[in-house]
Order: sequence, then C-alpha cells, then structure tokens
Amino acid sequence: MKVMIPGVDGYLGWPLALHLLAQGHEVIGIDNLSRRRRVREVGGQSATPIYSPFERFMALHEEYPKFAWRMMDLRDYTEVDYAFEKHRPDAVIHLGEIPSAPYSMIDVEHCNETQTNNIIGTNNILFAMHKYVPESHLIKLGTMGEYGTPDVDIPEGEFEITYRGRTDTLIFPRQPGSYYHLSKVHDTHNIIFACRTWGMRATDIMQGVVHGLSTPDMMRPCDCLEKQLDPRLVTRFDFDEIWGTALNRFCAQAVIGHNLTPYGTGKQIRGYIALRDSIKCMTIALDKPPKKGNYRTFNQFEECYSVNDLAQHVVDVVAEFDIQASVWNIENPRVESEDHYYNPDMKHLPDLGFVPTMSLDDELRITIPELMKHKARIEAKRDKIKPTVNWRT
Amino acid sequence: MKVMIPGVDGYLGWPLALHLLAQGHEVIGIDNLSRRRRVREVGGQSATPIYSPFERFMALHEEYPKFAWRMMDLRDYTEVDYAFEKHRPDAVIHLGEIPSAPYSMIDVEHCNETQTNNIIGTNNILFAMHKYVPESHLIKLGTMGEYGTPDVDIPEGEFEITYRGRTDTLIFPRQPGSYYHLSKVHDTHNIIFACRTWGMRATDIMQGVVHGLSTPDMMRPCDCLEKQLDPRLVTRFDFDEIWGTALNRFCAQAVIGHNLTPYGTGKQIRGYIALRDSIKCMTIALDKPPKKGNYRTFNQFEECYSVNDLAQHVVDVVAEFDIQASVWNIENPRVESEDHYYNPDMKHLPDLGFVPTMSLDDELRITIPELMKHKARIEAKRDKIKPTVNWRT
Repeated sequence: MKVMIPGVDGYLGWPLALHLLAQGHEVIGIDNLSRRRRVREVGGQSATPIYSPFERFMALHEEYPKFAWRMMDLRDYTEVDYAFEKHRPDAVIHLGEIPSAPYSMIDVEHCNETQTNNIIGTNNILFAMHKYVPESHLIKLGTMGEYGTPDVDIPEGEFEITYRGRTDTLIFPRQPGSYYHLSKVHDTHNIIFACRTWGMRATDIMQGVVHGLSTPDMMRPCDCLEKQLDPRLVTRFDFDEIWGTALNRFCAQAVIGHNLTPYGTGKQIRGYIALRDSIKCMTIALDKPPKKGNYRTFNQFEECYSVNDLAQHVVDVVAEFDIQASVWNIENPRVESEDHYYNPDMKHLPDLGFVPTMSLDDELRITIPELMKHKARIEAKRDKIKPTVNWRT
Repeated sequence: MKVMIPGVDGYLGWPLALHLLAQGHEVIGIDNLSRRRRVREVGGQSATPIYSPFERFMALHEEYPKFAWRMMDLRDYTEVDYAFEKHRPDAVIHLGEIPSAPYSMIDVEHCNETQTNNIIGTNNILFAMHKYVPESHLIKLGTMGEYGTPDVDIPEGEFEITYRGRTDTLIFPRQPGSYYHLSKVHDTHNIIFACRTWGMRATDIMQGVVHGLSTPDMMRPCDCLEKQLDPRLVTRFDFDEIWGTALNRFCAQAVIGHNLTPYGTGKQIRGYIALRDSIKCMTIALDKPPKKGNYRTFNQFEECYSVNDLAQHVVDVVAEFDIQASVWNIENPRVESEDHYYNPDMKHLPDLGFVPTMSLDDELRITIPELMKHKARIEAKRDKIKPTVNWRT
C-alpha cells in the first residue's frame, strides 16, 4: 500500500514509517521539521540524539528505496495539493500536528499557532484527499484528552442517547483541557463533516499517552550477537515541561537523581499505551479500513494510571537499576480535575484483533538504561523540567 | 456601559450600534470592512445602498460623539491588544465573523479563511479580555446551525444526561452542516474552555436566521410628518446565493418577478427572528450578564418555519403589494437532511423578559416596499441568486 505520513520526523511518525516500510509498504513521509524547531525554541532537547533529516532519510532510504520524504508545510495548500496529485496515496496517517498542551498555553501566539497549524493542516489534507483520492483512508491522530474527565463512562467517539423520550446516536460531548486539546476536537468535527458530506472514510484515534523510545524495527545487526538499537533509527525522547509527558519527565528526573514531581495531588487518571503497541494499532486501522463514507473512532490505550501510580512505577523500576528515586508532588500549573471518575471504553481495537504486548514496567526496563546512556544530555537541560507555563495566566 | 462591537459594519453590528448608542451606551465599533470586500468578490451587492465607512461613521458620530470606530483586523493580536488596552470595555458583543455557509464551501481557501478568521479572531478577543478586562462580559454570536438537526429535542447549549446509570451535565452534541457552521462550533468549545479556565463570563448566542433590514433606531425626522428611514442608517440586505439567506433571496426574487426557488423539497425547518428582536435579545444579554466564570447559551429565535413555509409567506405578503409570485423548488446544492425532527428549546431569553414584537409577515410588510425602491439594484444582480456552490464538489 502507498501510505502518506505527515509528521514523519516526529515521535510517532518515525517509528511508524520504519514499521510500515519493514512490512513492505511504500511510505511518503512529510514534515516541515517544526518539532525540532519548537523544542529548541523552549530550550529543550531530546534525551536520545536525533540525527539530521538527511542522515535519517539516508538511514532508511538505503534499505528501503521506496521511502520518499517531502519537506513541506501542511498549512500551504498548494504544496499539499501537489503532493497528493503526485503520490495519490491509498491511505494517509496524519500525525503532522503540534502535540503539546503546555505549548498551546504559553500565550496567544502559541495558542493560535497550535490551532491554525492543526486545523488548517487537516483541512488541507481533507480537501486534497477529496480531490485526488476520494476512496483512500484517513487515519488521524486525536487524543483521549478530547473527552476530558466527564462523570460518566466514555464511549468510543459517539453514543446512543435517549433524551426526553426520543433516541439518536450523536458525538459524545468533548471537554478538552487546553487550546491544544481543543484543536483536536475541532479536527474531529471537521473530519466527521467531510465523511458525511463527501463520503470520505476516516479513522479518528483517541490515543492515550504513549511511552517508550524504541521499537523492534529500530534494532539492527551489529558485531555482537544480539541486535542493537541503531542510533540513527531511535525516536525522540523529550522531557522538558513543554514537550515531555509526565512519564518522560519522571524518567528523566530519576536518571539525574531529581525528585519525581507529579502536578497537584497526582490523582489525575489517564490512559497509557506503549510505543510499539501504538504503532501496531495504527497498522490494524490501516489494514482494516472503514467503509466509504464511514467515520469511526478508536479509543487507543492499554492501561489507566493515576499520575502518582506512574511515578511509583518509575520509582520501582529504576530501583532495579540501583537508582533511589522519591516522589514530591508540586503545585499544579494546570486547571484540571484532580479527583474524578474515569472509565473509557476500549473495544474497537480488540474487536479487530489488537492484543497489547508491552506493559508499562517492561517498557520502562528498556527506556531507563537507554536514558542512562544519555544522562549528560538530560543533566544539561535539568532546569527545563519544572513547570513555568501556568494555565491561569 | 462601554461596549465594544467587533463587526460593527455588518448586517447586525450596525443596527446594534445604533440601538446601544440611542440607549446611552458608549460604543467602540471595530471592523476591517471585509464584508464589503467579500460581497464584491462574489459579484453581489446589498439591495439597500450602503454608505461609505466614513459617511456611516459621520452619520452616527455627529449625533453620538461617544461613538468610536477602529478599522482593524481581529486576526492581528497586536491590534486587538492595543484596542483593549486603550478602551477597556465593560462588554464585548462579538459579531466580527464571516457568516456564510456557502462562502466557506466555495473551495479550500474559503474554508480556511472562514475558519481562521472566526477562530483566531475569537481567540484574540478572549486573550485580550483575560489580560485587560477579566470582569467584562463576552456576548458571542453563534448560530442555531451549530446543532444541526438531531432526532431529539435541542436544549440550550448543554443538557443533563444519564448514561449507563451515571449522570452528568455536558455540552449538547453539535452536528454543524458547513465549514462555516463548524467554525462556530470551534468558537463555542474555545469559549467554554476560557470560562472554565480563566473564570471569564460569556453568553453564547445560538441565533436563528435573522430577517428584516430596518429598526426603529434607523428612523429620523423629515419634512413630512412621519419619521422616515434614514438611508445612511439602513443596514445591508444581501440576496446573492453566498450572502443572502433563503428568505432574502425569496424577497429579492419576488420583487423582480422571478420564481421563488427553495432548495430541494423545502421541508428543511429552521428558527427565525426579526432584526429588531435580535437586537433586543442582545441588549437583554448585555443588561443581565452571567456570573463570573459562567458560560451560558441562549437559543435565540421566535418562530420555526420550513423553507416552503417561508416561500409561501413571501408569496402571500407580496400579493398585498400586487406582486404575483410563484414557488419553484430546485435541486439542493447542499448536503442536509430535508425531512427531519426539529424541536429546539427557547426558554432562557423569555425567562429574562424577552417578548417577541415582530412577526415574519409584519417584517415582510416593511421589507418588501423598501426593496421595491431598489428593484434596479436587485435586477442588476439577478444572475447571482441561483446556486453555484455545491456542497459535494
């Protein structure tokens, strides 16, 4: 299959491209390298060194000549139009969005940049798909954060309700918690409309927090007997307050001997999924597309944890590597419910054959030693972990 | 009160400014004149001649020295910031959005222009209000079209649901029918977030289709005994396929002896409200603001009609002016349900004292003779009434 991946240079896009190429697909990667720029902007850096775009491209291209990489900006429709006219993909796995809640909350410019980038990029893809490849399948990365934390169960995308004696199936109400999360909700509504009006087919993935920095596709033969992680193929591991997830920050803090610092009471519960399983889920979506005109939603996570649970898992696993870590909750810079009901469905992916393969602890057992190799890079950005972006101001 | 009106040069902004000034409020009008430009772009023109911005401004300023008009673009945060720093309004009635569904469906550029203009303009206002006037009240114009046509009753904004045995109050699911309507849904979500996170207060108005071209505030003494409509004060009456509502198109068609052309079966039902009553509702929202941190929704309409009903009302009223009109349904260029349940609530405004004053027929009895004076202007744009923008392509 010919698969276009906007956001190929990002945390998920890169391992996804590796995986699809290894499976024999033709991959057209698209990126404007803005993640690199935006991480530099806030003074961060990936704990794992990320090779230059040219080195990255060559590392794949020498093995997979069918790998193409277009440097372009999704906000420019002329470029998007040309890419679709030329490549006519069978499917698009759209990861080309700004993925950070704190980044969107820095100030009005970052809010607008996030919403414009994400909404206009997605609109441009929708229009170009409708024009050139109306039969193709859009797989779009959303987030479980679109739902927020309602006091009822969270279905997958839509639900049947009975209201004043009448019944209809409608989109489940969203309660996003940042201008970034809002941008994903806006995308969701735009995509539903395109499916209904143009007969497009789309899978909208409400993904939990992804963890891990490597997948089996990144392993290459070496002088020793076992395969080793090829440093050119590893993906990003951001750990600053803006681009690092809570789990990434905890791992980084543990490695440099810092307290782990959950925000607030730490009782906030979210869904989590291992990087390799996330890739697997997207592959399932690709292999089993919805019918034309159908819009479907996958809730994509494996386990639910509170932030305190996460920290405790890190404490326990780093102890296996002789690191003593402790937890120190700090004031919550976000406006969010810290004590809430949380019971999201996750049925569509298992129905299509998905089986989780990697627990949080096992993923940590791979991640922590890898991070220990790059301790100096984390140490150098130690002061970028503590929160400065406040939701209220 | 000091009231800022973004969109003061538009169909609603202008009569609203007139009314608030007459009531003794201080009004800061904001506009970039883009409605004029966009109507010209599609080859249309208002049936009522609209005076130049300078003449319009002078017509008000000579009577109300407290009327200020800033020519600026809401998409430019620097300008918005300066306007709020300087004027520090007590309330903002935000009408500064692109209001046309067909305009947003012309092509990808018009879709993106509509969504960017509306979302970024609203975001900029939210950030500037939060920074300079956190106690002030945002009154924002949405549309009943945000809801679409669900098969259940439509509450006002949110509803209490019981789902799998648990209960919560959540935003009522939206099913918007164009990229324009989607932009309003995106605004709604962004405003809810700002209220929850920053403690802002906002009234989000889900308005039905507004009809009429004059209000009592536009009447001025003249040589004869009765007051007359001051041509400098009249508001726009667009009737082309892009900027005219179905009712406006029917009125224009009747005046030039053309068949009235409802789209499709004409069974589509919508809510309608007279211009002067719409202004009255916004004044009620202004006079009775919600508490700080509160987001509330008003469904704002008076009567529900099918498109065929509308056409019939026009046929009946123009007959009083010796015009014989007939109805000729044409193929529907839109993707929309033509046979649907429609039962929206409208309780919040009556609870605050709103009483409708003007029926559709009475408003038509004012509008039709006014349009007859401008028959030549309508005749000149006769070919702009028929639909060319198709939702499917």
